[in-house]
Order: sequence, then structure tokens, then C-alpha cells
Amino acid sequence: MPLACISLLRYGKNGVIEEQRGLAAHDCRAPAASAADVIWLHLQGLPAPEQLQALSAVFGLHPLALEDVFHRETRSKIEAYEAQQFVVLNYLHQDQTGKFNTGLVSIFLGKNYLISINDGPGDLFEPVRRRIRNTGKPCEHGADYLLYALADVIVDSGFSLLEELGDQIEALENEILDNPGHEARNKIHCIKRELVQVRRIWWPQREVIAALMRDDGHFLSDITRLYMRDCYDHCVIVIDFVETYREMASNLLDTYLSAVSQRMNDVMKALTIIATIFLPLMFLTGLYGMNFDTESPWNLPELHWRFGYFYVLSVMAVVVIGMLIYFRRKRWL
Amino acid sequence: MPLACISLLRYGKNGVIEEQRGLAAHDCRAPAASAADVIWLHLQGLPAPEQLQALSAVFGLHPLALEDVFHRETRSKIEAYEAQQFVVLNYLHQDQTGKFNTGLVSIFLGKNYLISINDGPGDLFEPVRRRIRNTGKPCEHGADYLLYALADVIVDSGFSLLEELGDQIEALENEILDNPGHEARNKIHCIKRELVQVRRIWWPQREVIAALMRDDGHFLSDITRLYMRDCYDHCVIVIDFVETYREMASNLLDTYLSAVSQRMNDVMKALTIIATIFLPLMFLTGLYGMNFDTESPWNLPELHWRFGYFYVLSVMAVVVIGMLIYFRRKRWL
Amino acid sequence: MPLACISLLRYGKNGVIEEQRGLAAHDCRAPAASAADVIWLHLQGLPAPEQLQALSAVFGLHPLALEDVFHRETRSKIEAYEAQQFVVLNYLHQDQTGKFNTGLVSIFLGKNYLISINDGPGDLFEPVRRRIRNTGKPCEHGADYLLYALADVIVDSGFSLLEELGDQIEALENEILDNPGHEARNKIHCIKRELVQVRRIWWPQREVIAALMRDDGHFLSDITRLYMRDCYDHCVIVIDFVETYREMASNLLDTYLSAVSQRMNDVMKALTIIATIFLPLMFLTGLYGMNFDTESPWNLPELHWRFGYFYVLSVMAVVVIGMLIYFRRKRWL
Amino acid sequence: MPLACISLLRYGKNGVIEEQRGLAAHDCRAPAASAADVIWLHLQGLPAPEQLQALSAVFGLHPLALEDVFHRETRSKIEAYEAQQFVVLNYLHQDQTGKFNTGLVSIFLGKNYLISINDGPGDLFEPVRRRIRNTGKPCEHGADYLLYALADVIVDSGFSLLEELGDQIEALENEILDNPGHEARNKIHCIKRELVQVRRIWWPQREVIAALMRDDGHFLSDITRLYMRDCYDHCVIVIDFVETYREMASNLLDTYLSAVSQRMNDVMKALTIIATIFLPLMFLTGLYGMNFDTESPWNLPELHWRFGYFYVLSVMAVVVIGMLIYFRRKRWL
Amino acid sequence: MPLACISLLRYGKNGVIEEQRGLAAHDCRAPAASAADVIWLHLQGLPAPEQLQALSAVFGLHPLALEDVFHRETRSKIEAYEAQQFVVLNYLHQDQTGKFNTGLVSIFLGKNYLISINDGPGDLFEPVRRRIRNTGKPCEHGADYLLYALADVIVDSGFSLLEELGDQIEALENEILDNPGHEARNKIHCIKRELVQVRRIWWPQREVIAALMRDDGHFLSDITRLYMRDCYDHCVIVIDFVETYREMASNLLDTYLSAVSQRMNDVMKALTIIATIFLPLMFLTGLYGMNFDTESPWNLPELHWRFGYFYVLSVMAVVVIGMLIYFRRKRWL
Repeated sequence: MPLACISLLRYGKNGVIEEQRGLAAHDCRAPAASAADVIWLHLQGLPAPEQLQALSAVFGLHPLALEDVFHRETRSKIEAYEAQQFVVLNYLHQDQTGKFNTGLVSIFLGKNYLISINDGPGDLFEPVRRRIRNTGKPCEHGADYLLYALADVIVDSGFSLLEELGDQIEALENEILDNPGHEARNKIHCIKRELVQVRRIWWPQREVIAALMRDDGHFLSDITRLYMRDCYDHCVIVIDFVETYREMASNLLDTYLSAVSQRMNDVMKALTIIATIFLPLMFLTGLYGMNFDTESPWNLPELHWRFGYFYVLSVMAVVVIGMLIYFRRKRWL
Repeated sequence: MPLACISLLRYGKNGVIEEQRGLAAHDCRAPAASAADVIWLHLQGLPAPEQLQALSAVFGLHPLALEDVFHRETRSKIEAYEAQQFVVLNYLHQDQTGKFNTGLVSIFLGKNYLISINDGPGDLFEPVRRRIRNTGKPCEHGADYLLYALADVIVDSGFSLLEELGDQIEALENEILDNPGHEARNKIHCIKRELVQVRRIWWPQREVIAALMRDDGHFLSDITRLYMRDCYDHCVIVIDFVETYREMASNLLDTYLSAVSQRMNDVMKALTIIATIFLPLMFLTGLYGMNFDTESPWNLPELHWRFGYFYVLSVMAVVVIGMLIYFRRKRWL
Repeated sequence: MPLACISLLRYGKNGVIEEQRGLAAHDCRAPAASAADVIWLHLQGLPAPEQLQALSAVFGLHPLALEDVFHRETRSKIEAYEAQQFVVLNYLHQDQTGKFNTGLVSIFLGKNYLISINDGPGDLFEPVRRRIRNTGKPCEHGADYLLYALADVIVDSGFSLLEELGDQIEALENEILDNPGHEARNKIHCIKRELVQVRRIWWPQREVIAALMRDDGHFLSDITRLYMRDCYDHCVIVIDFVETYREMASNLLDTYLSAVSQRMNDVMKALTIIATIFLPLMFLTGLYGMNFDTESPWNLPELHWRFGYFYVLSVMAVVVIGMLIYFRRKRWL
Repeated sequence: MPLACISLLRYGKNGVIEEQRGLAAHDCRAPAASAADVIWLHLQGLPAPEQLQALSAVFGLHPLALEDVFHRETRSKIEAYEAQQFVVLNYLHQDQTGKFNTGLVSIFLGKNYLISINDGPGDLFEPVRRRIRNTGKPCEHGADYLLYALADVIVDSGFSLLEELGDQIEALENEILDNPGHEARNKIHCIKRELVQVRRIWWPQREVIAALMRDDGHFLSDITRLYMRDCYDHCVIVIDFVETYREMASNLLDTYLSAVSQRMNDVMKALTIIATIFLPLMFLTGLYGMNFDTESPWNLPELHWRFGYFYVLSVMAVVVIGMLIYFRRKRWL
Repeated sequence: MPLACISLLRYGKNGVIEEQRGLAAHDCRAPAASAADVIWLHLQGLPAPEQLQALSAVFGLHPLALEDVFHRETRSKIEAYEAQQFVVLNYLHQDQTGKFNTGLVSIFLGKNYLISINDGPGDLFEPVRRRIRNTGKPCEHGADYLLYALADVIVDSGFSLLEELGDQIEALENEILDNPGHEARNKIHCIKRELVQVRRIWWPQREVIAALMRDDGHFLSDITRLYMRDCYDHCVIVIDFVETYREMASNLLDTYLSAVSQRMNDVMKALTIIATIFLPLMFLTGLYGMNFDTESPWNLPELHWRFGYFYVLSVMAVVVIGMLIYFRRKRWL
């Protein structure tokens, strides 16, 4: 099993103090409780158990929390242990084939350190790191603000996801209102399934962020809680949009189905009109194609009329015109 | 980026004291805390960042609030900062093509001033301005009543929107009950989508107005809260109607779909009746159109009958009449 | 604008003391606070603004309440002002064409008087008046009991409405289970729309009655609150029935749709059976109707057979019987 | 109007003390408040008003409660009056035709007596009477335990009802998965309607039992409340099953509808295959059945070919085989 | 009636002290209240009433709890009696035919003993026993931790069930998106029914675990409650997945139905195209197959044309090409 890549970032008011990548787990040291600067340990990739145990020995991580890091299906959750605030957040990212995968970020927030573990492939938190390097806002606050910054990155990733879903839905809507085809059906299905996934992830997310926002001040400062409230508002917007999109997808399916029904109607009408016009005509041609012995004057006398052919043709014309008038009246034409 | 147009209105018990349009942001001055008159600064159009910063410097606006002014997808929200009550309200307006767009009004309510920012194209608040000029009710109260007046304008804009949606639904209902056509489907779809939009905007709106109504008296006076309660009642009526319309739209779709099914049934019945009548007849004409060698007396003897033709015609008549009786019994005719 | 007809009824323990119809608004006098008898002013029809202002001057009605009297779309509501309890209740009544219209009753309950305003055409409250004339129960209690009596009349009007809807649904159910026709669809649609209307009115009604039932004793006596509780129970039954009917209407639509589908199936089966039997037969007749030069012995030798005709007829019989067996096996017959 | 049959049962720790049937209402006597034994008066059938008035005079029943006994549509309810706990419970019973009817049991629970009124036809409570006669558990407790015993009988009647509904649903499920026919539709409809009824009755029932369970000890002893809690649990199971059955019935309808659609598909495919095979063949036979003057060598030269007939037959064979391959590819065969 | 197999496991800090299988009920002894070790009595299979009575005599089990052990349809529940915490949990297991059955585990938790009764066929709790034998975690804690361990086993059994359902849904989804067939419908139905069952069991389960988690400390220690919280989190995940799967199954049905509709459309189009092309052609062949007496120059003169046959063939070609262009324009081809 590959080890997770551990990177360390120590920063204070004046920006980055120390930065290391590819650290070994047993080299990590917990900061002194009185230290003014913040240590951010980030593990990219699912950590090996021995890595976590080494960290656990240093930082005193709770065994139940460690279990959650490895549990494949972990809901967003928040748990306050004695020494740390433990937070699990989920996010969705698309792989190359466009399929949605769930990524997991576990965060341990201590007095002046934060440990984040991201089991996904790419590094979400580079923008935060950049802001720290530029002595941006995170440097002015403690480790709790860092937690907010990471949560904010994850919530914002929801926006870009939604934007794409919104574009897909709009494109699909145009397609369906214009000319609903075969693949539209499968596309609606996929969007609905993705929305189910997004929804399953974001509802608990909201609760977690709400819990952070209402934190009793043990781990989060007042100012960070205010920022968290902003993050919560964004979270609510994401969920609003998910619900709105779900409804729009349902509407799309309804419209698709009624379009298919309507189209079937048109097809059937065409068939019925054709059949209703030609079957009587064919009956007439068949009638005068019978081989009755015309020696008897009562057998098919029309065949001997001088204008028999025109007579038949005009009967046919009458039939056709009559049918057309009938259809017009029934508004089928 | 164009600057927003800033207009200033200062009024007291005796009506307008000062009115200016096209003010520059750095010319704005905060009123003295003890001033008896109310200053209303209105920014029409999305303000440029430098305009907001200038205002922020004068009035001490909170940076998180400023962020929300620029955030494209802002939900209606209310946030109490130290110096101001910050309120965001949404409204829907139709553009020329009839499409619904969301407009955003951000309001900062201070002790004796109010700053409103409307990113939309048209000016919603002219009626309020007119009432102030006429030394109407707003003049008797403070800036908090002005907040109510603006909220009331926005809630009332919901009524006119609903009235139009209601008319559309009623027209559509008549169309569908009478003769459900091709475009009815797309119209239902659009109405449902618009209702989804309206709903997404109004539910948070209601919460905001409710929060204002239950304000703890820091920014809103008791009398304004009573008026706010009226505004809240109207807000609830809007939502009631939205929900009612949503259900009516769903009913419409169901009725449309069953009408399409029923119509298909009629078409298929017509086809089946025609086919069931003419196929046997055509079989008969085909039968006597066969070229069997009639030298053998066993081959198609009917062809030699003196009244063979009439015999065939009467067989056909029997078939047709029998079919018609059968269809009548099955209630297809 | 026509004036509303104002009628006055003053009653005490011993029944009616004074009764007047067609009173002018400015002739109304508020009772002394210590008076033992109850004054009931009833305005039938939408009052003219000047009438309300006259009343307002006498009884001190709150301007916001007056606004609600004129607001076309007023939800049932309850508002406690200083001098009065203001209650708005809605009811549905059918006009001659069977369409449902909303009627509005606004009630101002004071210490020993009650003002009721009914904007509808007919007089709902005659039964209450009759009971007062007969020195019935209302005479034993104060104006608060009168409020209960009026609310009770309105809630009971819901029962008769529901009874009719219930009968319609039952009739429709029999029609649909037996032979679902064309108009059944539109009838279901109308019932569903009416239920939407009834529901929109009754949910807020319930809240209002509940609020009256839980009144803090300022305007309603304990005994009246007990009666109000009975009224509330009835209100809940109305809503129960509305929800039940809504579900029954949905079930009806589902059943209707599946009946239409099933019927289409039957039609299509008939068509398919006819076509599947006759097309092969017609092919055979066509085959032996071809004009191949029979000088070549390989061309249509069957035509020269002595029993060719019977041979063809028996091939046809085999085809028909085979098809019938096939359909029987597929359970289409 | 027939009188209800009044029966009296007086019992104590040692079993039945006195038992009477067909008692007259004015012969009933209230027990002394200090009496140790319990009096149970049961009225079977809707009582005549004079009976109730006689009882009311003896036991001091509240007029509002009496009204509820006669009100046709009474929801399960609980009302604590001064002298009695008034409880109304509903149950469903099938009449001979299998239709569900609502039965009503009104119960007045006093200090050491209980009056039960059952407006239905059959006597539900015989099992309870038997247990009392056998000096069973009810004898050890007071009248409040008797209330529990009656409630338990009613809740248990829900179980047997559900068992039957469950059997019906299972049978219907097999029928629909196997071969969904015409009557399945109506059966689903009826089950859904019955479930709507059951649900309407049981939800308020649950609230009543819950209220009894949480009784503040005025009428029910602690031990009875514990038993009531068991009764409540059963009540919740009934509701759980009702909701489960509702969902199963909805699933059944969906499955039925998709089965009908699928079946229609099969029918249409059969028709299309037949038509697509035979129409081209018939065209060919028609072609060589034309009467063109074959003196011109350009007119229908095939008719003169030595193997013209075989040529046509093989063209037909090619058409048929081609079509069959085509259908096979489209997976229609 | 077969007896349940009683097994006893007594363990302390140092692992198993005593282990017995096939114990007789009257041989069981309650532990001294001060004993440090834990006794776990497990009854596999539905116990005979005499077994339970023997146990009840020893441990003082409450009669209402015993009733629940035998009640066939018991919801998950928790009940605190004086001497024991009584917990009922449900689980689902598949029998050989793949059908889901409900298993019931009743647990009595006393001071330092636990009695578990499992009415199902297999033994769920072997893993717990193994951990105790290996002096695992359960040995470090009291009987309350054992309760957690059992609950955890049951909740985990939900995960494996869900995993299988998830696989089934995914397989079905691929089948439906690719080529929705006949059996897909019944499979969706079965999955939906199973989900209804799972849901009915897990919602009350969650409440029970939540109640244990919030236990007031009488029976559960703080540390066990923390573990219970983990168990609760897993329970919530199970329910999340059930709801997600329910929605996915609904989506599947919608997609299936629209696929069937679409397919029907394709079939009908094929039929209509064939009929629309061949009916006119057949009419033409019929026309020139009529036997009009061609002595009159006005009767079917085309038959005598030198290139009459080619003329007809080219008319037919024009008809076919015209139709194909028309269909192409209507996008049917």
C-alpha cells in the first residue's frame, strides 16, 4: 500500500516559516501549546495505517476518528474530542470519463495545528497554500481560520459542479423542447442520478458547517464563526440549487415523455390517414379486377361502360376528397 | 465597468430636504448620529468596486456584506452587523422576450440612513420616492420604515408576477381542456420552470421578512415591525399562490397527458375500424380476381353465376353491417 | 360603488333588544364598556370606504385591518390589536354555474360588540340571527360566543361543500371503473382544481381557529375557548377529508390512465388480429391473380388443377386456424 | 328510532358481581365515588337521544361530548372534562359485500365506571367481557385498565384488517407480475382507496393513544399508562404497515402500467412484422396481376419467361428472409 | 415446539471464564450484583414459553417485554424497565431463494449480564464471541459494551445488504440504459419492494440506537455511549443509502417507461413508413389490374401504351422517392 504524501506548512503573522513536502510520519512534531504560529500537516492520498498511528502517537488522535478516516462510506460529520475537533467533509470531482466520484477530506483541528487528510487524487488546497505564502488573510488568524478556508474551498467546488450541471440541464432542455431524441432520455437519467449523489453529500455537509458555525467557542473564534456563517450561506445556496435542479430534471422528464406521446400521436395519425385513404381505393380497384363472367349482363356491367374508367376514377376522387374533408374537420390535418 | 448611478434623498418630517442624482461615491457623507432627518442613498446598477469602497470608508460597511453584493447567486438574507442591518432581497422581472430574470436589492440600514443597491436595469423604487416627495407616510417615520417601504415594493412586485402567471395558467387550462395541442406541452414546461424559479426566490425571502418582523428592536421600531408583519402576510400569500400554481401546473400536465392518450385512442380506433372493414372486403375482391382455370367446374364456380356480382356485393354488405354492429356493441362507434 | 347593507342586532340574556336593517354607517354608536348587552353590526357586501371610515371613527378600527378588508386576496388571519381582535375567515360558495368562489368574512371582536363584514352575495349568518331571536345559546354568553357561532357557521359550510365533492368523486369513481370516457378526464381535472382551492383556504383557517382556541383569555372566555376547540376539531376533519379526497382524485386519475392504456391495448390487439389474418389471405389471392403466361408448365401450375380453388381455400383455412391458435396461445383472444 | 341495547357489568377483584342486558337508561345508577368495584355500561347501536340524556343526567356527561357521539364524521379524539375522560376511537369492519365501513366507539371514563357506546352492528368487546368473567387481568385493576382493554381490542382489529389487505396485495402482486389483466387495475384502485380510508382513521387514533399514554395521571394509573404504551407501539406498527402497503400499492400500479405498455409494444411489433413482410409481397403479386397489353415486348416481359413464376417466388423469398434478418438485428424477434 | 438453544458466556478482563452451550433454562443463575465479570446468555431460535418463564423467574424480566419477544411483527424498540434495559432490533437476511426475511433480536441488558434472543436461523453473533475469546475489546468493558457490539453487528449486516442492493441496481441500470427488456420491469419492482422493507425496518432502528446514544447513563457508560454514537452514524448512512436507492429505483422506472415509449415510437414509425410506401404502390397495381373493357379508347388507355409498364414503374419510383424525402424531412428516417 502506497504511503500518503505528507506535507508540512508552518506559518505565522509574517507568512510561511517552514515548508516541507514528503515528510515521514514519525518526523512530525506537535507544536508547543503556547506557540504563536500554526502548523498545517496535509496528507494527500489515503494514508497507510502506520502513518496514521505515528501521527496519532504525536497528536493524540482518537481511535474512533481514525476508523472514520478509513471507512469507505463516511458521511460528512463533526465530532468534538477532547484534544481536537474532528471534521469530515465530502466533495465530488469528475474523473476523465466525466463520472462523478466522491472525495473525502478528514480534518483534525487542534489548538494551533491542523491535520488534513484527502484521499482523492488531486490536491484541492493549493489555492489556500498560495494565499498563505502571499501572507494573505489566513496568516492573520489561527488554525481555526485555516479550517474555514479549507471548508470554503470544498463548498466552492460545489458551485463549479453545479454550474456544469446547470449548463447540461439547459442544453438538454433546449434539445428536448426542440426535438427530443433517443439519447435525451439517458442524459436525463444520468443528470438525475448525479443530482441524487450531490444531494446525498450536501445535506449532511450543511449540518456539519452549521455545527461549526454554532460552535461553542472552544475551537473556533468568534470571527471565524462569522466567516463560517458565510460559508454556511453558500452551502445553503448549493442545496437550493440542487433541489431546483432536481425539480427541473423531473420537469424535463415529464416534458420528454409528453413529447414522445405527442410524436407517437403524429405518427399514428399519418398511418391512419394513409390507410383510411388508400384502403377504400384499393377495394375499388380490387372490385373491378374480379373475373366475373361478364356474359351475364348483371355481372360487373360497369366494365363495359364507355367511360367506366373515368367513372371509377371519379368515385375514387370523391372518396379521397371526402376523407380529406373529414380529417380536416377532426383537425387531424 | 460602468459606475452605478448614485442618487441621494434626504428627508424629514416636512418632506424632502435635499435630492441629488449622479452623485460621486466619495462625495457621500454619513449623517450625524443625532440628526433627525433620514438619508437614503440609492445605487442603481451594479456598483463598481471603487464606489463600494468609498461608501464603505464613509459608512463602515462590513467586508463580508460587500462580498455578497457582488456574489452573483445571492439568496435573500439578513445579517446584523454592528453598525448596520444588512438585508438582501430578490425579485423577478421579465425582460423584453418574456424571460424571467432575477434582480437583487442589497440594503444597508443604519441609524438614520439607508443605502440600497439594485443591480437590475429598471428603478423599482420610484413610487417610494414619490410618496416621500409628497410628504407621505415614510416621512413620519425613520429609516426603518423606509426599509419596510422598499420591502413592500418588492413583495408587491411578486403579486403582479403571480397575476400574470395565473392568467397564463388559466388560458392554458382552457386550451388543454378544449383542444390540447403541440405547444401546450412546452408552455406547461415553461410555466413549471418559472414557478420553480419563483419558489426558489420566495422561500428565503419569507424567512428574511419574518426575521425583520421578529427583530429585537435594535434597528426596527415597534410600529415598523407591525407594518413588517403586514408585509410578511403578503409574502405568505405569494408563497401560497406559488404552491397552488405549482399544483395546478402539475394537474394540467396530467390532464394534457391523458388527453393525448385519449386522442391516440381515438386515432387508433379509427384506423382499426377502417382496416377491419376493408381488409375482408379486399380479400373477397382478391378471391374473385384469381385466375383459376374455370374449365374445371370446381374452380371458382361463382364467377359463372348469373348474379355472381350481386352475390359478392351482398356478402360484402353483410360483412360491413356485421362489423358495424360489432363495433357499436364494443362502444367504439 | 354600492354601499354595504348594515344591520344591527342588540341582544342580552332575554333575547333581542333592538334590530335594525339598512342602517347608515354614521348612525352606529359604540356600546358603553360596561354595557351588559351585545351589539352585533353586520355589513353584507363589500363596504364602501366611507362606510368603513365612519365605523372606524366610532369603534377605533386599526388602519392595517381596514386595508385587509379591501385586499382582494386575503388569507385567513388573526391579529390582536389593542381594542379589538381582528379575524379574517374565508369560505367557498358555488355560484349558479357550479364554479367555486371564495367569500371573505372579516370580524372585529370588541369588548361587548362584534362587527362582521361579508363581501359575498348571500347572507351566511341568518341561522345565528334566528337562534338569537329565539333566545338561544348565544344570548347566554358575550360577544366572544357570537364569534364562535359565526366561525362555526363557516366551518360547517365546509362540510356541505365536502359532502358534494365526495358525491362527485364517488360518481366519477363508478364511471371510471365501469367505462372511462372522454369527459371523465376533464371532471377529474376540475375536482382536483377545486380541491387545490379548498385546501389553500382551509389550512390557514385551521391555524386561525387554533389561535382562537389558544387565545390567552383577553378577548375569549374559557367557556368560549372550549367551544372553539370543538370548532377546531371540525376544522381538522374538513382538512382530513380534503387530503383524503385529493388522494382519491389522484388514484382516480391513475386508474383512468391505466384504463385508457388498457383500452388502447384492446384496440391494437383487434387491429393486429384482423391484419394478421387477412394480409396472408390477400397475399394468396394476389398470388393466383397474377397473369403469368401459363403456356409454360412452370408458371402457376395450380391454376390448372381440377381442385385448385379448393386447394387455395384449404390453404387459407389452415392459415386462419393457425393464426387463431397462435393468438389463443398468446392469450390475445 | 331503535334504542341502543344497554348492558351493565359490575366487577371487582373477585370477578363479575352483577351482569345485566337490555337495561333501561333511566335505571342506570352512578357508583358511589368510594366504591371499590367497577361499573361498565355498554351501549350497542346508536343510542336514542333520550337514552343519552337519561345517562347524562345520572353521570353528568358534557353536552359537547354528547354532540360528538351523534356527529357522523367524528375523528378519533380525546377530551378531558371535569368528571370524565372522553375518548372516541374508530375502527374499520367489513360488511358482507367486503366493503369497509367505519365503526365508532365513544368512551366515557369516570372514577370507577366506564360507559362505552358502539354504533356499529357487531359487538367488538365480547373477548374483554369473557376475560372479566374468568376473573382475568381486568379484574385486578380499575376502570382505567378497562379503557386500555377496549383500546387494545380496537387496535388489534387493525391488525387483522391489515393481514387481509396484505394477503390481497400479495395475491395481486403475483397476478400482475405473472399476467396483468383487466381486473387487476380495478383491484389496485380499490386497495388504494381502502388504504386511504385506513390511514385517515389511524393517524388520529395514534395521537389519541399517545395522549392516553402521556396522561398526567388524573384518570389513568401509572401501570395502565405502561400498558397503554404497549398499545401505542402496536398502533405505530399498524401505521407503519399502512404506509408500507400504500407504497407497495403504488409500486404495483407502476408495474402494472409498465406491463401494459410493454404488452402494447409486443402487439405493435407483431402487427408491424406482419405488415412489413406481407405488404411488399402483395405489391409484387399486384404488379404481375396488372393487365398491360403484352404485345409490346416492353410491357411486363417477366410474364412470358419460362420460369417467371419461380422468379417471382424467389424474389418474394428474398424479401421475406431479408425482412426477418432485419427484424432479428433490431431484436424484434 | 422446539426449544431455543441457550449458550452462556462468562467473561472478565482476562477473557472467557466460562462457556457453555445447550444449557437448560432453569440452570441459569443471575450474577451477584457486585460481580466484576459479565454473563452473556444467548438464545438461538424462538424460545419456548417455558424457557422464557424460567429465565424470567431468575432475572425478573418484565411480562410486557416477554410478550414482545413472541409478537410476530415487532418494531425495533427500546424500553427501560426497572431492572433491565429492553432492546429489540431487527435485521434482514436472505434465504436460499434470495427472498428477504426479517430477523428479530431481543436483548435484555442488566447490571452485569445480557440476555440476547435471536429468532432467526443462523447465528449472527459469532464474531463478537470470537473477539471475547481473543480477550478483545469487549472484555475491557461491561455488559453495556456488549450491547454495543451486538448492535454494531446488526447495523453492519445492513451494509452488506445495501452493497448487494447497490450492485443489483447498478446492473439493472446498465441493462435498462442499454436494452430495456421484459424482465427489467419485474426486477425494478422487486428492488423497490425490498427497499420498502429495508426502510420500514431501519427508520425505527435509528430511533432506538439514537435513544441508546442519548441514554441518561443508567445502563450505559459514557464511553459506550460514545461508541453507540459511532453506531448511530453508521445507521444514518444505511438510511441515507436506502433513500438514495429508492430514488434511483424510481429514476430507473421512469427511464424504463420512457424507453418503452420510445421503442414503441420506433416500431410505429417503421410500420407507418412501410404502409405509407406500399399502399400507394399497391393501389397503382390494383388500378391497372382492373378488367375494364378496353375496346372503349377511354378505358385504361395506359394498358396499350408501348412503354406503359415503364410508365407505371416510374410513377411508382416517384411515389417512393417522394415519400422518402417527406420522411427524411420529418426526421423519421
